Order: sequence, then C-alpha cells, then structure tokens
Amino acid sequence: MSKKHPPNNEHIDSNMIKMEVNLDDISGEWLGYVMDRLFEAGANDVFYTPIYMKKNRPGILLQLLCSNGKMEKMKDILLKETTTLGIRYYPLTVHRMERRFIKVETPWGTITVKQGVDKDGEVFQSSPEYEDCKKIAENHGIPLKQVYEAVWSRL
Amino acid sequence: MSKKHPPNNEHIDSNMIKMEVNLDDISGEWLGYVMDRLFEAGANDVFYTPIYMKKNRPGILLQLLCSNGKMEKMKDILLKETTTLGIRYYPLTVHRMERRFIKVETPWGTITVKQGVDKDGEVFQSSPEYEDCKKIAENHGIPLKQVYEAVWSRL
Amino acid sequence: MSKKHPPNNEHIDSNMIKMEVNLDDISGEWLGYVMDRLFEAGANDVFYTPIYMKKNRPGILLQLLCSNGKMEKMKDILLKETTTLGIRYYPLTVHRMERRFIKVETPWGTITVKQGVDKDGEVFQSSPEYEDCKKIAENHGIPLKQVYEAVWSRL
Amino acid sequence: MSKKHPPNNEHIDSNMIKMEVNLDDISGEWLGYVMDRLFEAGANDVFYTPIYMKKNRPGILLQLLCSNGKMEKMKDILLKETTTLGIRYYPLTVHRMERRFIKVETPWGTITVKQGVDKDGEVFQSSPEYEDCKKIAENHGIPLKQVYEAVWSRL
Amino acid sequence: MSKKHPPNNEHIDSNMIKMEVNLDDISGEWLGYVMDRLFEAGANDVFYTPIYMKKNRPGILLQLLCSNGKMEKMKDILLKETTTLGIRYYPLTVHRMERRFIKVETPWGTITVKQGVDKDGEVFQSSPEYEDCKKIAENHGIPLKQVYEAVWSRL
Amino acid sequence: MSKKHPPNNEHIDSNMIKMEVNLDDISGEWLGYVMDRLFEAGANDVFYTPIYMKKNRPGILLQLLCSNGKMEKMKDILLKETTTLGIRYYPLTVHRMERRFIKVETPWGTITVKQGVDKDGEVFQSSPEYEDCKKIAENHGIPLKQVYEAVWSRL
Repeated sequence: MSKKHPPNNEHIDSNMIKMEVNLDDISGEWLGYVMDRLFEAGANDVFYTPIYMKKNRPGILLQLLCSNGKMEKMKDILLKETTTLGIRYYPLTVHRMERRFIKVETPWGTITVKQGVDKDGEVFQSSPEYEDCKKIAENHGIPLKQVYEAVWSRL
Repeated sequence: MSKKHPPNNEHIDSNMIKMEVNLDDISGEWLGYVMDRLFEAGANDVFYTPIYMKKNRPGILLQLLCSNGKMEKMKDILLKETTTLGIRYYPLTVHRMERRFIKVETPWGTITVKQGVDKDGEVFQSSPEYEDCKKIAENHGIPLKQVYEAVWSRL
Repeated sequence: MSKKHPPNNEHIDSNMIKMEVNLDDISGEWLGYVMDRLFEAGANDVFYTPIYMKKNRPGILLQLLCSNGKMEKMKDILLKETTTLGIRYYPLTVHRMERRFIKVETPWGTITVKQGVDKDGEVFQSSPEYEDCKKIAENHGIPLKQVYEAVWSRL
Repeated sequence: MSKKHPPNNEHIDSNMIKMEVNLDDISGEWLGYVMDRLFEAGANDVFYTPIYMKKNRPGILLQLLCSNGKMEKMKDILLKETTTLGIRYYPLTVHRMERRFIKVETPWGTITVKQGVDKDGEVFQSSPEYEDCKKIAENHGIPLKQVYEAVWSRL
Repeated sequence: MSKKHPPNNEHIDSNMIKMEVNLDDISGEWLGYVMDRLFEAGANDVFYTPIYMKKNRPGILLQLLCSNGKMEKMKDILLKETTTLGIRYYPLTVHRMERRFIKVETPWGTITVKQGVDKDGEVFQSSPEYEDCKKIAENHGIPLKQVYEAVWSRL
Repeated sequence: MSKKHPPNNEHIDSNMIKMEVNLDDISGEWLGYVMDRLFEAGANDVFYTPIYMKKNRPGILLQLLCSNGKMEKMKDILLKETTTLGIRYYPLTVHRMERRFIKVETPWGTITVKQGVDKDGEVFQSSPEYEDCKKIAENHGIPLKQVYEAVWSRL
C-alpha cells in the first residue's frame, strides 16, 4: 500500500486502519487518560461512542484511526491502559484535501487560519486555529466567540 | 403531600422525586447491576444517560424516580453500590392515566394487554404485556414480532 | 406566578414547566412525528435524549418546555401520539435576554440576524436566521456555510 | 464489482461503501441541513452518532452509505457543506431481501404496506409506509398511532 | 481464511465480520429481546448505538461481531426479529491475547479471575468474573463493589 | 435557604440549582472551551448530553450545578461564551456524605485516597485521587491501571 497523488490537490491514503474496542469494565476516568496516551503515540484520531451492551451495561466503543505502521504501538497502549483482551481492526482509505495556512491579524494578535482549496483553486473552507484563538481569549479576557468572529469578519 | 383524584380517570401524584448522580469512576458492569438493585428496592424507574464530563471523560447520569418515602432506601443503595458521595434530588409531579387490563387470545395462548382509557371512556392506548409475549415467543420458537402482530390484529 | 421585568434587558419567566416521558415501546418514526405535533401546539422546545432502560432496552427521554397554560394541550398530544400512560413535570424559571433583529445585505439577498444585547447595550450574540440562510443557499445553489460566512464577514 | 443474484429472493450488493467524517467544529443547524443534501444527492442512508472527541469536545460522527459511483458526488457535498478536509471510506456488502408492496384499505383511505418475503414465500415483515400514514393522520386529525393500528389490525 | 498463531501468546483471527443494521421503526422492548437471541445464537458481541436518522428520528445502529460461519444464522434472526430488510457487513481482523484463569479466595467463597499475559509472561490484566461476584453479592447481601475490592486486594 | 446538618455524617445542601441550556448552533470546539470556563468560575459540576432537536439537528444539553450565589456569574459566562439567549434553572437539594482522606504508600510514591464513611463509621467508598495516580503513571512510565491496582491492593 502507498500514497497515490491524484492530479490535483487531493491525497488518497490507503495506508490507514481503524481499530476498535468495546469496553464495559472500565471507568470514564481511565478513558479520559487513555485518549491522551493514544494521541501522544501518534493516532490520527481517537473518539468514544456510548453503546448499549449486554446485561444492561452502558459501555464505550473506542475507535482510533492510525497508519498501518502504528498498529503495534496502539495495540500495546490499549492492552496496558484499558481492560480489553481483544482488539479488532479493518483497513480504510482516507481522502485528504490539500490545506494551506494563512495569517489573519486581529486587534489582539495574529491567528493562523487553515484553509481548504478545491481543484479550481477556490477556498471552500476556512478554520481559525483553536489553540491560537484560545490563547488570545484567555490572555485578553475576552470570549472565545468574539475572537472567532473577529477572524471571520476579516476573511 | 397526598394523591388527589381528579373527577375522571387521571391520578396526580405530587409525592414523587427524581434523584440524580453523575458517575465517571464506575464501570458499565457495576451499573448494569445497580439498576436491578434499585428496581428491586421499589424505584418507579431507573435510567442512564451518556454524558460528557470534565477531563475528557465519558460518564453516566443515573436518574431514578421514586416516592418520597423510598428516598432513604435508594440513597443507601446508591452509596453502597456506586462510587458517589453526593446525591441530588428534586420533587416532581406525575400524572398517571387510569389503566385497565384485557385478555387477548392468540393461537399460542392468552396475552394480557394494558389499555389507557381517556375521560370519554375511549381506549387511546393498547400495549401487549412484554413478559407474556416473550414467554410465548420462547416457548413456541416464533419471533417476538409475530406474537405482537397477532395481538394487534385481534384488538 | 407572573413575569417580572428586571431593570434592564432581561426577562425572568417563572411560568414555565418541563414535562418528561420515558419511552421504550415506540419507534423512531413515531417520535419524529410527535416532535412536530408538540411544536405546532406551542411547545417552546422539545428534545430527545437516548437513555438506557431496564431489560437492555435503548429508550428515549422526551423532554419539552412549555408555559403552564399549555400543559393540558401537551399532555393530550403525548397520550394520543406516544405509548405512555404517565407524564411527569416540574416548574423551572427561564431567563431570556432581550433580543433584537437587524438586516444584513449579502450578494444574494437580505438575511435577518438575531442579536443579544447585554445590560451595557453591547451586542454579545449575533445569529443569522437559519431559514433565511437555507432559502438563499437552496435558491442560489451555494453551500449554506458560504451564506453564513458572508453574513459574519459583514457584521 | 457487480450485483450477484442468489437463487431466491435476496440481492447481494457488493458495490457499496460507507463514508465517515468526524466533526467537532460545526453546529447542529448545519448538520440538519447537510443530511438533506446528501439524501437528495442519492445517499442510501445518512446518520449521525454523538462522539467524545479530544479536548473535551462533543462531536458528531457522520456516516453515509452509497454506491461506489456516488462517492465523488458525496465527497463534494461533504467538503462544501461541512468543515472537514478529510473523508474516510471502506467497502461493505449489503444483503437486501426482496420486497413487495400491498395496499390496505382503512376507514380513511388506502395505505401502502411494504412486505419482506422469505425464501419459502412467507411474509416475515410488514411495514405501513410512513408518509401514507402521516398524510392520513394530518388530514383527518387523528393520531398517527391510530392509523398504524388500523393497518395492523387488517393485515 | 484461517487462524494464524504468532510466535507468542496472541491469536489473529481473520475470520470475523461485523454486521450492521439501522433501525428507526422498532421499539426498545424488541431490541432488548433481539440482543439476547443473537448472543444465544453465537454472536461474539452485540451492541447498540443511538443514531440520528432522517425526518428527526432517533434510531439505533445495531452492530454485531461473529465468525463468517455464523453469518446466515445471524441474518435469519435479524430478519425475523427486527424490522429490517437490508443488512450490511464487512470483514475485520481480531487480535486476541492469550487469557488464563486463576482462582482467588475471598471470605465468601472462590472467585475466578481472568488474566491477560503479555509476550514476556507478565500479567497486564486481571478481571474478576462478573457472574461469580454477582452471585456472592446477592447470596451474602453485600455490595458488588465490596466483592470486587476483596478480590483486588488479594491479587 | 441554609445548610442543615443531620446528626451524623451527611450534609444536606438546599442551596443548589441546576442550570440548563439547549444548544444547536455551536461547535464542539467552543463547548470544550466553555466547560473549563464554568469550572474555573466555581461550578460544582458541568456536563453535556447529546440531544435530538428540531429540524434533524444533533444538539447538546449543557447542564451545570452551582450554588445560588454563583448563578449570575454562570449566566454571564453562558451568554458570552455560548450562542444562547435563554437559560433555565431550578432548585435542587444535594446530600453529601462526609469524606475523609487517607494516604497510601505505593512503590512509586504516596497517593491520596478519598473515603466515604457511613453513619456507623464504616468505610463504604475508597477512591484513589486521579491526579495523584496520573502523575505517578506519567513520571514512571507505567500504566494508570497498574497504579490504581497497587492502591487497591493496599487498602
């Protein structure tokens, strides 16, 4: 498996897997912790879904996305940090649009904005970077919402 | 507080409370167990909602409905069987419609149907009893769905 | 109970109730329908929460907010359109901020924006009206996102 | 990939994919809109799951099912109408049972009922068409439930 | 497809599938029932996720894991006991760690503990068997939590 | 309203309220942020529930618990940091069990354990402090689970 480059501005990554674990014998406290460990170890994404399991148990479906090469590392964390003895996975393909980053000046400082550009060169997506906005909101004691709105009005 | 009887076929019960506990340090296994204990001790209803708690923790909101007189008993179970040290509650009023029970004959046996009757004497609700239907489905090796449909077609 | 007007731009409504019903014997199809009926009859809000009920049943908690005067009408719909024979409720207080509406011109037409103004006269909230944006997006074949962004950049 | 016809009354469609997107920077308003767009463009199904994402964010997992041939169209809508720059997908197989439609007369008009027939020719599934039932309920001012019950009692 | 044995203490099972059904026209009562039927018929796991479907319908995503050889049996139950006419599935791989069982003595009797052992022979997982703990809790009238804690303190 | 002290080891706090907001026009990113702000400002608890709102919108029910005296502060944050113009609340009573803290020595350092003691002086609850365990797990590169287990085996 390898990364193919379509003519334009889109990457097709066929090298990804989704790993899944069902958990009904672990607390939320531990789950908050394990998510951080998996991200640190290079997971592309980690997320939880509430599920209904047998014997009236509210459980959690842990899903994570990573490249094939990270699988052993992820498995290792899942076994050590959760209560599972079985992990399932399947391959998937990811289409990723080319992204570029621009800087936007606000009254309180510069904020990076991530943009998606389509095959005709048009911007179809503009997302102010959360960590930039958060830092400004906290440092200046203003609502986060106001920071985002300031960026949007300058795009 | 007491039960008032409106002229017709409706009871207003002002004697009820809802108790609530947020849980992020307990497993689904234990939660499946504690639900049964609370019902056995006389809770009118017990149900769980998935919630998002601090520090990225998937948690559970346990809610239960019971009469004021049952509060101490419920609290006792919650403290012993869950991981909480704090329980909150508030009063609520319950309107309950008069219900009556009829018998419906099916090819596999009799099934009780719970009916709600409105103030003009009209049936607005007919629910085959689950445990009756389940027993017949299991004993005769037929789908539960088929048992319900047999009841509905005879109402 | 009555509506009190605090000095500024905030209404305190003590005339509201929340009604709740737990449902485990009704399909999603019917629930989609009953939500519309309740809104039509004047509910201030109606929303569903997934809940875990006894006997391994995924259920739905229906909650609705309405004024005291609407309670009988709501109860009537709940009894006729759902499968419940019991409805619970409790009073609550609602703080509502004064809202005003402004018009914003976009390349494709005018869009109403709802604004919240705080006690110092400052706008702390600006929400383009969804139905306006939707109509423009559909009529001009442009993404809804683009319509909102056009409004935000003009605020 | 092609459609194979097993001897009886079941189609096996190996031509389907599931597309998935994780979203934590989009509002519910927009998500309600994008579901309609995806169905209009020919998705077989679209549904949302609440998920727990990093940094304490409640997010949504958008999943859609479509044939391979629809993938580009779906991707286009997802990029334009949501905030994502990455879309993942994987193939799946769908078994679809042969369905037939019968007409049932009720006091208020005719209702179509979709039926599933198994390999021995037996009906194992009967679903009154929602839109038919809804129209009758609205036109005659009767509960939707009553319309369904009238159909069931005539099957 | 077959089971491969890696050198150590891990099984890789490439013989598994996940089956999925979206349901918006079935009650929670029936879903509680069908989960039991699927487990009885040999499903490795069955679980429900709340999903948002079209037309404002709260629905359920039923997922089940089983070996390829069980697929027809599962399909049969899904068609008979739910309201679906279409079932989708895809293959997945399951890594299962070698597990061993030890006995732990408590003041109230013996409890089996399931352990996971890693490739260096170290125990990384110890789970008291729920049914053992439950039985002791019920027979001796002590909290389930206390039984687990007694086991943990003896490991 | 005031705090009453029952004879034993339980506090009844009648001075608490629950505030609630329904949100369908805000992103998960902002919601992750606002939770932190509310905790910093003194909320006793803040949690999110996924809800199904009108027009097919996945929404979030924000709930927070605070003392009466904190209400204005919380309202201020909700108005500034979310998209709501209306906030509802109702009083509730909280029973809090007396808690005491003990120290437990592990091979990697001391960990605080919170204990609940019932009216007969018996410990019915023992929770290792998460932040203590987390710090040790991170500093020593061992699984969080192993730290908890070390504490439990010493209780």
